[in-house]
Amino acid sequence: MAKELLMHDVGEQVDLFLLIKSATKGIASNGKPFLTIILQDQSGDIEAKLWDTSDDEVKMYQPETIVRVAGEVHNYRGRMQLKIRQIRPSSPQDGVSVSDLLETAPISKDEISSKVTQYIFEMKNPNIQRITRHLLKKYLQGFLEYPAATKNHHEFVSGLGYHVVSMLDLAKAIAELYPSLDKDLLFSGIILHDLGKVIELSGPVSTSYTVEGNLLGHISIMVNEIGKAADELGIHGEEVVILQHLVLSHHGKLEWGSPKQPMIKEAEILHLIDNLDAKMNMLDRALKRVKPGEFSERIFPLDNRSFYKPTFHL
Amino acid sequence: MAKELLMHDVGEQVDLFLLIKSATKGIASNGKPFLTIILQDQSGDIEAKLWDTSDDEVKMYQPETIVRVAGEVHNYRGRMQLKIRQIRPSSPQDGVSVSDLLETAPISKDEISSKVTQYIFEMKNPNIQRITRHLLKKYLQGFLEYPAATKNHHEFVSGLGYHVVSMLDLAKAIAELYPSLDKDLLFSGIILHDLGKVIELSGPVSTSYTVEGNLLGHISIMVNEIGKAADELGIHGEEVVILQHLVLSHHGKLEWGSPKQPMIKEAEILHLIDNLDAKMNMLDRALKRVKPGEFSERIFPLDNRSFYKPTFHL
Amino acid sequence: MAKELLMHDVGEQVDLFLLIKSATKGIASNGKPFLTIILQDQSGDIEAKLWDTSDDEVKMYQPETIVRVAGEVHNYRGRMQLKIRQIRPSSPQDGVSVSDLLETAPISKDEISSKVTQYIFEMKNPNIQRITRHLLKKYLQGFLEYPAATKNHHEFVSGLGYHVVSMLDLAKAIAELYPSLDKDLLFSGIILHDLGKVIELSGPVSTSYTVEGNLLGHISIMVNEIGKAADELGIHGEEVVILQHLVLSHHGKLEWGSPKQPMIKEAEILHLIDNLDAKMNMLDRALKRVKPGEFSERIFPLDNRSFYKPTFHL
Amino acid sequence: MAKELLMHDVGEQVDLFLLIKSATKGIASNGKPFLTIILQDQSGDIEAKLWDTSDDEVKMYQPETIVRVAGEVHNYRGRMQLKIRQIRPSSPQDGVSVSDLLETAPISKDEISSKVTQYIFEMKNPNIQRITRHLLKKYLQGFLEYPAATKNHHEFVSGLGYHVVSMLDLAKAIAELYPSLDKDLLFSGIILHDLGKVIELSGPVSTSYTVEGNLLGHISIMVNEIGKAADELGIHGEEVVILQHLVLSHHGKLEWGSPKQPMIKEAEILHLIDNLDAKMNMLDRALKRVKPGEFSERIFPLDNRSFYKPTFHL
Amino acid sequence: MAKELLMHDVGEQVDLFLLIKSATKGIASNGKPFLTIILQDQSGDIEAKLWDTSDDEVKMYQPETIVRVAGEVHNYRGRMQLKIRQIRPSSPQDGVSVSDLLETAPISKDEISSKVTQYIFEMKNPNIQRITRHLLKKYLQGFLEYPAATKNHHEFVSGLGYHVVSMLDLAKAIAELYPSLDKDLLFSGIILHDLGKVIELSGPVSTSYTVEGNLLGHISIMVNEIGKAADELGIHGEEVVILQHLVLSHHGKLEWGSPKQPMIKEAEILHLIDNLDAKMNMLDRALKRVKPGEFSERIFPLDNRSFYKPTFHL
Amino acid sequence: MAKELLMHDVGEQVDLFLLIKSATKGIASNGKPFLTIILQDQSGDIEAKLWDTSDDEVKMYQPETIVRVAGEVHNYRGRMQLKIRQIRPSSPQDGVSVSDLLETAPISKDEISSKVTQYIFEMKNPNIQRITRHLLKKYLQGFLEYPAATKNHHEFVSGLGYHVVSMLDLAKAIAELYPSLDKDLLFSGIILHDLGKVIELSGPVSTSYTVEGNLLGHISIMVNEIGKAADELGIHGEEVVILQHLVLSHHGKLEWGSPKQPMIKEAEILHLIDNLDAKMNMLDRALKRVKPGEFSERIFPLDNRSFYKPTFHL
Repeated sequence: MAKELLMHDVGEQVDLFLLIKSATKGIASNGKPFLTIILQDQSGDIEAKLWDTSDDEVKMYQPETIVRVAGEVHNYRGRMQLKIRQIRPSSPQDGVSVSDLLETAPISKDEISSKVTQYIFEMKNPNIQRITRHLLKKYLQGFLEYPAATKNHHEFVSGLGYHVVSMLDLAKAIAELYPSLDKDLLFSGIILHDLGKVIELSGPVSTSYTVEGNLLGHISIMVNEIGKAADELGIHGEEVVILQHLVLSHHGKLEWGSPKQPMIKEAEILHLIDNLDAKMNMLDRALKRVKPGEFSERIFPLDNRSFYKPTFHL
Repeated sequence: MAKELLMHDVGEQVDLFLLIKSATKGIASNGKPFLTIILQDQSGDIEAKLWDTSDDEVKMYQPETIVRVAGEVHNYRGRMQLKIRQIRPSSPQDGVSVSDLLETAPISKDEISSKVTQYIFEMKNPNIQRITRHLLKKYLQGFLEYPAATKNHHEFVSGLGYHVVSMLDLAKAIAELYPSLDKDLLFSGIILHDLGKVIELSGPVSTSYTVEGNLLGHISIMVNEIGKAADELGIHGEEVVILQHLVLSHHGKLEWGSPKQPMIKEAEILHLIDNLDAKMNMLDRALKRVKPGEFSERIFPLDNRSFYKPTFHL
Repeated sequence: MAKELLMHDVGEQVDLFLLIKSATKGIASNGKPFLTIILQDQSGDIEAKLWDTSDDEVKMYQPETIVRVAGEVHNYRGRMQLKIRQIRPSSPQDGVSVSDLLETAPISKDEISSKVTQYIFEMKNPNIQRITRHLLKKYLQGFLEYPAATKNHHEFVSGLGYHVVSMLDLAKAIAELYPSLDKDLLFSGIILHDLGKVIELSGPVSTSYTVEGNLLGHISIMVNEIGKAADELGIHGEEVVILQHLVLSHHGKLEWGSPKQPMIKEAEILHLIDNLDAKMNMLDRALKRVKPGEFSERIFPLDNRSFYKPTFHL
Repeated sequence: MAKELLMHDVGEQVDLFLLIKSATKGIASNGKPFLTIILQDQSGDIEAKLWDTSDDEVKMYQPETIVRVAGEVHNYRGRMQLKIRQIRPSSPQDGVSVSDLLETAPISKDEISSKVTQYIFEMKNPNIQRITRHLLKKYLQGFLEYPAATKNHHEFVSGLGYHVVSMLDLAKAIAELYPSLDKDLLFSGIILHDLGKVIELSGPVSTSYTVEGNLLGHISIMVNEIGKAADELGIHGEEVVILQHLVLSHHGKLEWGSPKQPMIKEAEILHLIDNLDAKMNMLDRALKRVKPGEFSERIFPLDNRSFYKPTFHL
Repeated sequence: MAKELLMHDVGEQVDLFLLIKSATKGIASNGKPFLTIILQDQSGDIEAKLWDTSDDEVKMYQPETIVRVAGEVHNYRGRMQLKIRQIRPSSPQDGVSVSDLLETAPISKDEISSKVTQYIFEMKNPNIQRITRHLLKKYLQGFLEYPAATKNHHEFVSGLGYHVVSMLDLAKAIAELYPSLDKDLLFSGIILHDLGKVIELSGPVSTSYTVEGNLLGHISIMVNEIGKAADELGIHGEEVVILQHLVLSHHGKLEWGSPKQPMIKEAEILHLIDNLDAKMNMLDRALKRVKPGEFSERIFPLDNRSFYKPTFHL
Repeated sequence: MAKELLMHDVGEQVDLFLLIKSATKGIASNGKPFLTIILQDQSGDIEAKLWDTSDDEVKMYQPETIVRVAGEVHNYRGRMQLKIRQIRPSSPQDGVSVSDLLETAPISKDEISSKVTQYIFEMKNPNIQRITRHLLKKYLQGFLEYPAATKNHHEFVSGLGYHVVSMLDLAKAIAELYPSLDKDLLFSGIILHDLGKVIELSGPVSTSYTVEGNLLGHISIMVNEIGKAADELGIHGEEVVILQHLVLSHHGKLEWGSPKQPMIKEAEILHLIDNLDAKMNMLDRALKRVKPGEFSERIFPLDNRSFYKPTFHL
């Protein structure tokens, strides 16, 4: 069972333990119930149908259940689907746990934690440093486990922390080339910009939006948190407003959910770095499965474009 | 001196005490300095030019100075201008104070205060009532004195409170026709929606934006304040998030500065009431000086439209 | 049979007389014909499928047929569907008539008629009054029976008259708060603004667009009717053009189908009142079926938003 | 005086009888009054300034006055201006009449009239023919004298009729290449499409918008007129609605003032022909004064583009 | 077999040789494979389903295969579908060839060729004439066989050449009415404007985009080709840049894929002629199957509009 | 004379040799001619007026003339202006040359040249390397001297080369963090992306657009050049089309002048790097003159935003 789910080409046989990510009941055109289930392992997810399902089966195959599935990968309207031949719930004897089947960031929580800690350690402005450290500590567990989004980019366990670490490394490289940038501001803005997601989203697995997330959004949530943190720490300098502004404006435009456009140089650059890292993540994931001389699936948040892999990219 | 500034038609002589609202130095095409000054009394403001100004005169005619001016109203490119014949700074003996010359809301601060207090008193939900009362009390003085905006609508002393009172009365009438509306939410949302302007703007006279106003805006400022108020009052109910959402979404669309669109019925209605009262204020002020059968000046925030006064509106 | 169609929750059994609103033939993936039918009673409508339909059945289950249906409500992709177990056409002995099963306005045609008549009676400007009375009389029957639209809001029998009455009451309340408004203009504009729908649409049941409706639209139709009415009544005052302008501009923007934006104060306010009443209708209908703490279905004309019902709205 | 106004290059001396198209009073930066006047002859118009004007001069140089002017053409911010050395009102002895100085269409009113009459004569559908003839007859004088617009294209005496004749000839040529087109509809649509301008605009000279023009616009005005004409002629066929639709939709898009987009083939083609003839007129007028190898002034309604005249266009 | 595919109404029996245009495998809701195939003859194409297909059948019914099909036309969601009763691959004895079943332009390749040659022959500017002749000769075969697009308009064999000939005839008629137009430029621009499609597209049958077509597009491809042609012919006049500009700008706007808007009069007119001929083609094809008094299917590139055929268009 | 032009604050006296960048004649409101001249030295430029200019003076003060100017800096509507007290043309004895007064990149042409050469040297793909080297060599002089634009960013001597070098260094840093990027493609795309500007623009001083630049633009010009280079070098690999695509798509969106959006990962990243370096340049130049706690002038290409310099950025 070494070969992972998404390593299988169309036509290949699959026999794997997989995690049910979601399961939706439907009525087939012959009037009988069926289930549409999304199955995943660490390599990603795939859709499958379960026809003529009994009520027992519907109860058996709930989200977050581990199952053993045998079947064949086929192509349905340009997307891969799994045609199930056999399926059964796993038992404790199988020795498979949920965490074995979740996609996770390529670096560990420890690495993320120590890298971010180091960046905070190097900050020179004490107000910025204290606020950043305070908020990271307050929400550390979520920061290390949550995805950065429910879909599109970094939508996996520890995606949030991994995205932040990539952005910090990128910011460091850019700040060396443009020394007028205030590294403290930039690093703090990066660490805090999406931290509100630990309140906006429900958790690392089967992620959805909380009521507070829907009504306020991670941007307003974190702007409030920065205000509270400053109050608790007794910090009154302009750094507080500036950090709030960096978080507030990091979507770059009003129509993308930032109530103010960037008005600080580091806010503008934070937005660009966020954009660049998210796009690299989407592009790399989309092109991973594409052969030279072919086009990728359409990537919705990139204006629904297909990307081409040149033939000389062997 | 009974006849106010804007009651004069083109061609009429003026001899009035006026307040300098702003004064900008320029260089005329003959190379000599001149001042463009905006003069106001309670009826509104008018532009005037002061030619060949000496350095002494520039210092003498600063904003917030009271002057006595004699001159003639004329029409310059479709806008009224005052052609100054004589001007001198007022002296204490003239017995004119700044407040005599400022445009103010048609109802007094006391009336505003007692009306709003009454609306809060009638609220039934204690969480909503307590947060609203707490924040109004905290920022009462500004609430009673600030304008609702630097331009466009309710841009006069006590404009903020007057706008809120008009909206409250309108909300009450609407809620009687649509009884499914939650009056507590609606009234509280109206009282709080622009309260952040007392931090966003510099003050009731010669109003400009503060740094915090520029970088965060009155929406984010008040969302934070609601969070702090709830913390201080020990309130944890969903009312907190809902009130924050009402303030957050009251501009109605992302591109108008709300990071979330309304997702609560009362939030949608709050936005519509705000809109209706602001438009009525702009329309009434623009049409006040227009004769039946004529078109008004263009009103910029109303898509730059001119409005027509029907000939039968005698 | 006291419990109406939409009062049933998912999983409940249904046994009701229902009206077929529409019926569309399809071919199932097994190559056999089936019918998609929309069934309704006064509480609203629901979709159902009829599998393996014979030609006789297709003829039997035409729109505007009353049927007796037994089955179960289930959830299909987030929308309710009726799974039919038994179905038969009703016979005269069942004693059920079409009007028993149509959704209608919450107030009667008589009430609508007398309220609108009263508003006309109170008008002071004789030109406005006579044109309004003339056109209402000419199209009274349609005005009392038509829906206000084919979908989105007030899409039920007498929806047009009900929408107008709500708007009139709202306009009256607003005009009391803003006494500069010309009530005659406002009331007449409200009564006439959608009256062209009695020509644009096919009728109160199974409503569709007429050719004239498609090619000209209710706005141009009614602008023409006002011109004709004035000619027939020998009225030449500016009121004619102003009333035409109110109808012409009531969609508010060119891209929403008004060839001119409002250029009269009452035209602007008419547009806002129309908007507010339509939104209240959509919001109340969407939230009616939602439990506290849940989100509604997406409402397409409200920018496709979901609305949340607070948990304290018990 | 053979050389016309716009035939003069920058730097040349001018001594001509000219017509004052408009005159606006201003106050110079030295506090003295001046007049900005637009002067025209048949070749076009030019701006000039009259400094230190007395009240008598202001009264003397009103719009539609003929004056004799000596001066020099110079270039002011990329536009030609006339620097006046001497100016006096013309006297009857000068023997110059207003019509000598107005720009007019290159073909006479008689030609326009007989060409359009011929096109109507050739129509085969009696309903279309009768409505078209009726309306042309009703508004013939205005049709032959009005401009097609106040600015941008065909903004000269008889511009409306000339524009229509050009479009008719173009439509005839197109209909020969695409024989599926209904020539009667196309010709009638062309003759009527802008005829409402004789009500929308004030007249052939110093043209401005009437109140009816502002509030309803030429499209709605003519749609009403077609309805009235059909009533008076007792015509009830679908031709009436179709002709109304052609006029209604001829601006092509909602945001360009058509409340319906074209839904008839001939309506779509009418829009394209209108567009093509207007653009040819604008392009020819703009390029007339440009030398090979140079760019024209920016043409506002053509997306503010400059057009280049190739060097090989000698 | 005289009656062609699209001449059949819903409900009629079909027994025809048809060409498979495309075939896509799917999985039915009973878990069995099926094929969605598009069948065509010279009158157009229609969709059909083949249920429970074996692997052999999938191989047998590939695109560009000729089959004999018996079945019935029915209506599926407003579009025609063919319900197959019998199907078999054709054999050589049937005597049917692919070209018998392809939709082609209504004029022959020879006619296209001789008409275009004549237009080039009449050019007076030798630089324009030589470049045009050179490029037409280089890509003549593709020019005579390719469609003008993969869908929307002129999407049939020889569609490109036919579109160009229609545009040339139209341009000639227009240039006679507006003699300021440079006919050489206009004719050359028309001949070259879409010629890059012979590189952008894969060929006349089952047309798709090439990699070069996707990454560069026919506009950039042809601009390059004009540059190369001029180099090879040793032509250095401004005509080269002007012709490149005509091709570059013929989509009219940046957002439609032209990196420059038209800045030459003939470039603007070329864009309008292209537009007019494409729209006539779409409208005629859509209205061909519509009866008087009915609306056509929605035409996507015409803003998704339906067009109405008047009842008097018998 | 050590203190440069833009180092002077408002109110300070200036006595400097300056270069006339542009000179425009106007007519003052007293009827007398004047000149608006832009004066520059290496620190930037400033506007000044020369009143009552004689014809001789107009000839004397042409663009690219060196003058000695004494005067005072003052503030005119929020922008700095120079009030001239004395002015005279420089003579050879003054020993000032044009190059002494031009703003130039902070690194020398030699440095630019050797850095770019080194990047080309390190390329591994011979096709990419040869095309890049060939085109750089062909246009080397312009590449080292031209600005990157006529305004907005890098609008100074050697701005093009400096912009490319900054982007190359940035690309190198990014490629180290995201090793999936093809460095050869990225570096070549950066070197070529704006190289067409040496044909689009007139030269390094008083830069304007050439006719070819206006009609084709630097993007199409360089796409052609890559095609020609590949022909001359006999290169036929897919690298040619890919490099053309990188140049073609580097503006990122159709409405920004790219006829194709990026469809290669490196094309997307090239666009982001171009964007980031241009914005850093604009931000640094705008903030250079701003004191902590103040807002910059509005930066037009950054959505016309003002940027704030935090008070703690001492």
